[in-house]
Amino acid sequence: MGITPKQFEQLQSRRPGARRVAAPVFENLQASRAPASVILGIDPSLRGTGYGVLRPGRQGSRAEAFGVIACPPAWERSRCLARIVETLRQVIRQHHPAVCVVEWLFYAQNLQTALIMGEARGAALVAAAEAGLEIYEIAPRKVKQAIVGHGAAQKLAVAKMVQRMLGLPEPPGPDAADALALALAYAQEQGRYNLAAPRRI
Amino acid sequence: MGITPKQFEQLQSRRPGARRVAAPVFENLQASRAPASVILGIDPSLRGTGYGVLRPGRQGSRAEAFGVIACPPAWERSRCLARIVETLRQVIRQHHPAVCVVEWLFYAQNLQTALIMGEARGAALVAAAEAGLEIYEIAPRKVKQAIVGHGAAQKLAVAKMVQRMLGLPEPPGPDAADALALALAYAQEQGRYNLAAPRRI
Repeated sequence: MGITPKQFEQLQSRRPGARRVAAPVFENLQASRAPASVILGIDPSLRGTGYGVLRPGRQGSRAEAFGVIACPPAWERSRCLARIVETLRQVIRQHHPAVCVVEWLFYAQNLQTALIMGEARGAALVAAAEAGLEIYEIAPRKVKQAIVGHGAAQKLAVAKMVQRMLGLPEPPGPDAADALALALAYAQEQGRYNLAAPRRI
Repeated sequence: MGITPKQFEQLQSRRPGARRVAAPVFENLQASRAPASVILGIDPSLRGTGYGVLRPGRQGSRAEAFGVIACPPAWERSRCLARIVETLRQVIRQHHPAVCVVEWLFYAQNLQTALIMGEARGAALVAAAEAGLEIYEIAPRKVKQAIVGHGAAQKLAVAKMVQRMLGLPEPPGPDAADALALALAYAQEQGRYNLAAPRRI
């Protein structure tokens, strides 16, 4: 009659003189092979910041939450920024991510747009930094390559691929999809050696 | 023998049937003629955010506090943003400003600079917005006109004029001087009719 590794562990520990060290049991060993820290992807913008909470696992990743922080056009900019940071704080409190991933931006239509996008990013990063998350940025091209397989993918293609990868009943909205794609791309990069790794910011 | 207005008030209130309404006493009436809400000027930037707290008064304005939030080049961006928001929160808690004024930015060297400046602004605005301050922006040209008299003034000229206007023992550093200049320009604009009034954001 065979014994399971766990039973073997238990028998070992009963031997006289056995070292009383807390040894990982079979189940825990399995789990520790896939370090599954929760990842928060954020796609910041003043009127519609997308966010997605991803729990990577051996049988594929799971979306724990995703959505968009919508701020009506009539709202003052500062009110939008306060809403962004407040909502992300709630998401972080609820899901305890260890890592935050944002897009590495190198393009905007003009300086005014870049400034306003920057303000939204600033608000989002404040929420993540104050909660002690490690923050990384990944180039958008890199994210599309990781999800769809080529860097010029359309928004809808990304949303559909995110839906398939996470087994969602329907494609998420474009902002939430981009945020989940960021988290998925980061999860894929983890532990891999490559020359365009996520940059810590 | 004459009586002071305060004594008159007190006598009035003792008459039988006098209306028991809290009436402003002489000293308070004086104060209320110059509505002196404290103004927080902020000149946000990732490595050196200037701030200045101004209390306008009939005999001229007073600087209650000013300084610079310095973040060493080795710090990650997100750490700087957290420091900016944390320091400004302390300043707001200590001095209770009602209004926050930032520069209206329309220029940056390039998109990357604009994004990073935007992030610092976003962090600063979060601190002000979450504390319920009214937030305004003023064009930098407008600030220089208000302080020095012409829109192309050099940084040192602004600092020296800020020193004179606030009776400071020496010119403040450039970042703090710019922040105080913003608050001073806003104080000057208050109640005036003009076509380039500060924009609420």
